Amino acid sequence: MVVAVGARPIMAPGWSGGVHTDIALVDCDVHQTVHKMDDLIPYMSRVYQQQAREQGIRMAGSGYFNVAIDAGRTDLATDCDAPKHNVHDMGSSFDLLKEQHLDLWNVDKVLLTGASTYGASILPDPDFAADLCRAFNDWTIEHWLERDDRLMMAMSISVNDPRLAVAEIERLGNDPRVKAVMIPTGSRMPYGNRHYHPIWEACEKHGLVVAIHPGNEGAGMAGPPTGVGYPTYYIETRMARPQMAMAHAVSFIAEGVFEKYPGVKVLFDECDQFWAVGLMWHMDADWKSLRDQTPWVKRLPSEYFREHIRIGTQPMLEPETNEQFWMMLDALHAEETLVYSSDWPHWDWDDPATTFPKLPERLHRRVFSENARELFGL
Amino acid sequence: MVVAVGARPIMAPGWSGGVHTDIALVDCDVHQTVHKMDDLIPYMSRVYQQQAREQGIRMAGSGYFNVAIDAGRTDLATDCDAPKHNVHDMGSSFDLLKEQHLDLWNVDKVLLTGASTYGASILPDPDFAADLCRAFNDWTIEHWLERDDRLMMAMSISVNDPRLAVAEIERLGNDPRVKAVMIPTGSRMPYGNRHYHPIWEACEKHGLVVAIHPGNEGAGMAGPPTGVGYPTYYIETRMARPQMAMAHAVSFIAEGVFEKYPGVKVLFDECDQFWAVGLMWHMDADWKSLRDQTPWVKRLPSEYFREHIRIGTQPMLEPETNEQFWMMLDALHAEETLVYSSDWPHWDWDDPATTFPKLPERLHRRVFSENARELFGL
Repeated sequence: MVVAVGARPIMAPGWSGGVHTDIALVDCDVHQTVHKMDDLIPYMSRVYQQQAREQGIRMAGSGYFNVAIDAGRTDLATDCDAPKHNVHDMGSSFDLLKEQHLDLWNVDKVLLTGASTYGASILPDPDFAADLCRAFNDWTIEHWLERDDRLMMAMSISVNDPRLAVAEIERLGNDPRVKAVMIPTGSRMPYGNRHYHPIWEACEKHGLVVAIHPGNEGAGMAGPPTGVGYPTYYIETRMARPQMAMAHAVSFIAEGVFEKYPGVKVLFDECDQFWAVGLMWHMDADWKSLRDQTPWVKRLPSEYFREHIRIGTQPMLEPETNEQFWMMLDALHAEETLVYSSDWPHWDWDDPATTFPKLPERLHRRVFSENARELFGL
Repeated sequence: MVVAVGARPIMAPGWSGGVHTDIALVDCDVHQTVHKMDDLIPYMSRVYQQQAREQGIRMAGSGYFNVAIDAGRTDLATDCDAPKHNVHDMGSSFDLLKEQHLDLWNVDKVLLTGASTYGASILPDPDFAADLCRAFNDWTIEHWLERDDRLMMAMSISVNDPRLAVAEIERLGNDPRVKAVMIPTGSRMPYGNRHYHPIWEACEKHGLVVAIHPGNEGAGMAGPPTGVGYPTYYIETRMARPQMAMAHAVSFIAEGVFEKYPGVKVLFDECDQFWAVGLMWHMDADWKSLRDQTPWVKRLPSEYFREHIRIGTQPMLEPETNEQFWMMLDALHAEETLVYSSDWPHWDWDDPATTFPKLPERLHRRVFSENARELFGL
């Protein structure tokens, strides 16, 4: 199916453009998911098919409640008698995505970041984890990518065993619809660690963005989701997302990943934005005193950040005043670093019209289109 | 010894006041330390005296290098042939503190936050940990508090065993020179956890501030210092400080500590400031959606923050532009939340004259004096 992109402008508050003929709206975080985990069984290796049929597909959980109807948008639930079922249907239905998001907002390109296999990287068994990612990728290609040219895939990989992750990247990385690898914020080590370097090397080779997204932090082998142990409530785990993003970003820079693999780009989705500003300021200051300890970090940390790291808009920071909002976008260097992300179909998603107050024309173009086009080579 | 406070104004850039007769300059983070750990042995219980004589005082370490001459100010090292010795002498010499800081800058009051027993709270054995804190407190009283009325003490406690921590607070908490308890950012659980509530109850009873300061994160029983495991380099551990501060602050608020103990005040020293701004914005937004899960959090999280949490100035955030600097102070509600901290005698310390560009008169007074006076009841 071929869809003419950008044929219709978004008529909504804050939209500043007229009719556009190029890619004007890219969404860097849309979640596709299986209706039920067992849907993946036919795509799995025989040994795990058998275990899954006997015991179900065992995933690790962290034990924190999310909100009502399992984090889905209530307005997308079509059958109130079976909310759980329908919630899962939201992210498992391409037709709903098309109707409620792609067509409604005239979205030109979306990055499918998955959902069902978030937790694979923190599963104990690296072979099972890799097999599960492979199954979800094949299922996504068949049920999503084949249906609409607007869909791009952040392929699932498990970082547990870099060799297996690289094999999966080699298997799918040349498919032009595959634009990124998707890994969770929750991990056993910060992602700059040498353990992961073969994966980043493979991403650079295939031009894949490293997309990092909250998911299963504090579960399985991931360890506690804060630097001071396990928090008690769900709201605390949400506040831990910027903390984890910060630790990963610092690690990528301090371990010299962007010097070693200058083609690597990292996208943080759903981790807020303010941490990135503070990190650039703080790390630049510290680097001036401490750079003899990491001589491979040759430039100001903020320079690596602005060149290699991108930040999704959702959830957009909500300062007390408009002046603070504009200043934070400026301090974030949003014209380079910020990309629109919706988090469709979750309850706290942001549609493209109400994420921001009316942006200046150029900033609007950068955030909703150009930064993402450069990131994914569109 | 009685010292006339405020007799001499600080003549330095940024100083806006004339001669002052009240408490005009309070420093909320000065590190006193023993010359060598064995100096504490006479103050310890007999069982640990014996073990310490045979094996030394066993502390947990994290294995990250700091900077040259073990984190001390090179300009305070008086004997270049024995830098290690003299570095330790800096923080172990009241005379040097008096000459180089108290008298030089005309400091009216300083909070002694210690150093030698940072790691007690993350030692495996809670009895030894408590004994070590007790020894250091007695040593500090004898060698520091007795020498100058400008000195206030943040007494060491180990949070490992709340019962023992409460006993130490009961032992010393009525001494008017004791103004706070000192605990490290590194911990096994976020400090809002119910495990710690008896300690906060005792702090409220005695009007003691809960002072939290980096120290020994990632060592001993503290677990990894980020939410994604152990980083590799020292600069990463410094960037982890705001992450840990954030996790503790969120925990205090989410677990309802400030509702349960409305007299409790928390001071974060040496953790930067930007995280506090983002936390208030982000947590307020999330609370609006999620407050049914923590109904004891009755007000906006930022209201608890502004009323109960104070932030030390060192290291002061270093934005790219002056406009960003002023906006961040404004967004931080610095007139309520920010207190001057020097971190004397460490290499990255901030003297009172150069921490800021010239502040408006009222903000200067709040940061350098009034916020701390209200915090410590001076």
